[in-house]
Amino acid sequence: MAAVAQEATAAVSERHRKTMADNKDLKLPSRAEDFSEWYNTLVLRAELADYAPVRGCMIVRPYGWALWENIQQALDRRFKATGHVNAQFPLLIPRSFIEKEKSHVEGFSPELAVVTHGGGQELEEPLVVRPTSETIIGHAYSKWIQSYRDLPVLINQWANVVRWELRTRLFLRTLEFFWQEGHTAHATAEEAQEETLRMIEVYRDFAENEAAVPVIVGRKSETERFAGADDTYTIEAMMGDGKALQSGTSHNLGQNFAKAFEIKYLDKNGVLQHCWTTSWGISTRFVGAIIMTHGDDQGLILPPRLAPHQVVIVPIYKTDEEKAAVLGAARRLRGQLAAAEVRTVLDEREGTSPGFKFNDWEMRGVPLRIEVGPKDVAKGTVVLARRDKPGREGKSFVPQEGLAAAVTETLASIQKSLYERALAFRVGNTVEPEDYGEFTAAVEKGFAYAPWCGDAGCEKSVKEDTKATLRCIPLGQSGDAGTCIRCGKPAKAKAYFAKAY
Amino acid sequence: MAAVAQEATAAVSERHRKTMADNKDLKLPSRAEDFSEWYNTLVLRAELADYAPVRGCMIVRPYGWALWENIQQALDRRFKATGHVNAQFPLLIPRSFIEKEKSHVEGFSPELAVVTHGGGQELEEPLVVRPTSETIIGHAYSKWIQSYRDLPVLINQWANVVRWELRTRLFLRTLEFFWQEGHTAHATAEEAQEETLRMIEVYRDFAENEAAVPVIVGRKSETERFAGADDTYTIEAMMGDGKALQSGTSHNLGQNFAKAFEIKYLDKNGVLQHCWTTSWGISTRFVGAIIMTHGDDQGLILPPRLAPHQVVIVPIYKTDEEKAAVLGAARRLRGQLAAAEVRTVLDEREGTSPGFKFNDWEMRGVPLRIEVGPKDVAKGTVVLARRDKPGREGKSFVPQEGLAAAVTETLASIQKSLYERALAFRVGNTVEPEDYGEFTAAVEKGFAYAPWCGDAGCEKSVKEDTKATLRCIPLGQSGDAGTCIRCGKPAKAKAYFAKAY
Repeated sequence: MAAVAQEATAAVSERHRKTMADNKDLKLPSRAEDFSEWYNTLVLRAELADYAPVRGCMIVRPYGWALWENIQQALDRRFKATGHVNAQFPLLIPRSFIEKEKSHVEGFSPELAVVTHGGGQELEEPLVVRPTSETIIGHAYSKWIQSYRDLPVLINQWANVVRWELRTRLFLRTLEFFWQEGHTAHATAEEAQEETLRMIEVYRDFAENEAAVPVIVGRKSETERFAGADDTYTIEAMMGDGKALQSGTSHNLGQNFAKAFEIKYLDKNGVLQHCWTTSWGISTRFVGAIIMTHGDDQGLILPPRLAPHQVVIVPIYKTDEEKAAVLGAARRLRGQLAAAEVRTVLDEREGTSPGFKFNDWEMRGVPLRIEVGPKDVAKGTVVLARRDKPGREGKSFVPQEGLAAAVTETLASIQKSLYERALAFRVGNTVEPEDYGEFTAAVEKGFAYAPWCGDAGCEKSVKEDTKATLRCIPLGQSGDAGTCIRCGKPAKAKAYFAKAY
Repeated sequence: MAAVAQEATAAVSERHRKTMADNKDLKLPSRAEDFSEWYNTLVLRAELADYAPVRGCMIVRPYGWALWENIQQALDRRFKATGHVNAQFPLLIPRSFIEKEKSHVEGFSPELAVVTHGGGQELEEPLVVRPTSETIIGHAYSKWIQSYRDLPVLINQWANVVRWELRTRLFLRTLEFFWQEGHTAHATAEEAQEETLRMIEVYRDFAENEAAVPVIVGRKSETERFAGADDTYTIEAMMGDGKALQSGTSHNLGQNFAKAFEIKYLDKNGVLQHCWTTSWGISTRFVGAIIMTHGDDQGLILPPRLAPHQVVIVPIYKTDEEKAAVLGAARRLRGQLAAAEVRTVLDEREGTSPGFKFNDWEMRGVPLRIEVGPKDVAKGTVVLARRDKPGREGKSFVPQEGLAAAVTETLASIQKSLYERALAFRVGNTVEPEDYGEFTAAVEKGFAYAPWCGDAGCEKSVKEDTKATLRCIPLGQSGDAGTCIRCGKPAKAKAYFAKAY
């Protein structure tokens, strides 16, 4: 037994050895050189996450988790403002539950992690580690909901889920990931549809106003829908390489789960009715969206509203006398900024040069750097250096007095400029193609916005021809959509197509 | 396949049917009648939690989760104030990891849930759903820690864990539970010991000042130590039936995990050293501590600092005219209280009487009720009714003007009186026995504080004789401890003995 255990351990260690080098020594390639490798290296180098010993799993390191906690707070505030409450449903689900909703089982069966043994015994019925919680929550709702008075039920949970993916990337697609999943039940189809749209709008607002990530809101095609939904809405963002990232989804589940799990209520007339349900989620994948939307060849650039550290103060000195004066000023300024609720870190590390510190915090994407040297102390000024504008362009000298106001203003300006830059990049890399030739060229470098006949066959052909998928059909379209970019028949609507993560 | 699935589903549903009645109709027995059934019923009836379809798992309902979120915030604030950061380590651990530390594997092997299949394939090496994370975190630390400059590492995670328990109770002992686990690494034994004690003190402070749960801080005997620790410190609370509940623990792991996982650092002299590590945790079990410390025959009593709703406003009216006036006043008061950051709910439910609402919120343990009727509106007053003092004794009439200040003061008074009452109960049910006869009588109804020779044999005999276990050896004892209550040999220290959850 001991020998077997040791052998297995050795195998795991071997598999993990390639990630055992100190991540601090990794060199970041440029985005133009190799975008994919730039991403992987940056996640490790900025200490957002690390590989776990189990294939495809990740460790979210403190810096990455602090970013996720800020994302959580920004979303949770919005969920509560729209009447939702949090709860926690079990990790382990009887396998039979997954099999109750026909499309759901088809979608999720291939991705399940299965617990077959517990407490040294083989289980009577295998348990599934939740890949998503519609089934177990549907089961609970069938008990809790009895009457129209119990509706709507508006519950969210922050949880980990497991999907057995074959090709994994840190944050973007991992076996275990972290997310929130909202699950609501309503008396009418109209209310469920309202909720579905309300939450995709909450996601848009969050993405654009907190993460500075511009998104396109739209409906998914039938092919791309959530397994078990009548309709899926999505926010789609363009990454720095022109590819799309599905960044959040909201599903109108119709009565599919209500029928599979018998979620019923007595209406005002005493008639038993099935509920209408929705679900919606944003995951740690969104961290990937932030990295690939804003990052540059020096590293991360974090939007000020979500950055764990909004400001880093780097003291610059040579002599002990200078050090005392500079650190004194730097600590005073940190206090000022903290009082103004600016998340500020003062880098007092010994034995590393200011230049090393500049690079280090640029790699980690801190939006604003404050440099304080002996001359600044003498003049009562500091240097502000914006992370989003390199070199001289991003530098300014400001007085120490009233620094908090200047900093707050600069952070707001950085937030705005990150959004505008990302939007300009998306607009510049989106084409409304005249013909299929232009279309296939467009999806090589960005988004194509093109008429589509509504046929899944055309969608499939496009994917086979170009590897691009239909990302979404934007809401609120009117007028003549033209003719399908693939088959030339009358189009039902215009849709975004792109290669996607 | 479909038939098999349906059969399995039927079995699960059958198993779950007994919990499918509407919890709202459950009748709460008195504590004297059946403390255990009082507890189980109260958890369901107050909608803190519900049974999951998988044996021993629980659903934490919104009201219970809101309480847990307040616990989380109170703890997280303290962790950050003592220099810790949060991260997230993987749920799935290679089974071989658990086997690396000898005592650890002995302690946890019988309780493991094992994933043997993923993505439709049998796994090469089975994975364990984490029962605790010393091993996977030790593995990560062995990579991240290279030099004394990297120390100390002070990380906490909020997570779910699974232990295959045979006898389960909602919150107290569930297969899956929710907790925080801190894991730290240090350069010296002294620093690790300081950290271990720092965190048990953080837990004491939290328990007493946030949850109003008085605790005894002490060291565990070797028998009761965490599997893999050199020393375990605990906070022990007395429940309403006189039994002890271990409410939080902090472990000095010595170099045990550092050696098993090769967590090493280069010291200032360039010599490779093993680190010294600690771990510490509080779980959803603490919700059980709050219920069983403060609850009475009417239901929960939640400490104001942690209560999801600190105040409920119940409007009282008969006519439509009264309703308009009363609701107007009630909403205005809610606004006043919300502005003063008092967590307030206004119960505007139609079709239920004020009496029903009083009972309902008493069951849910809201610390303070405000009653507003037509006469109150006319006189500019309200009735305050304290949850901790029944009937007239807890009632007072106060002016609407300046209500927030009166409410804040009353909540502080309730918080204080809950603590004092619980402390008086513990003191009243703790005996310092003169002989073993008194000892065995004492542990039938509460705690016995008695001299112990330090021998595990005596500890075992006590357990066999009385079912009481050694809960802890309080810190800071001095002087002669007397003679062992069981064997009469010279005692090493005095210890608390009690039956325990």
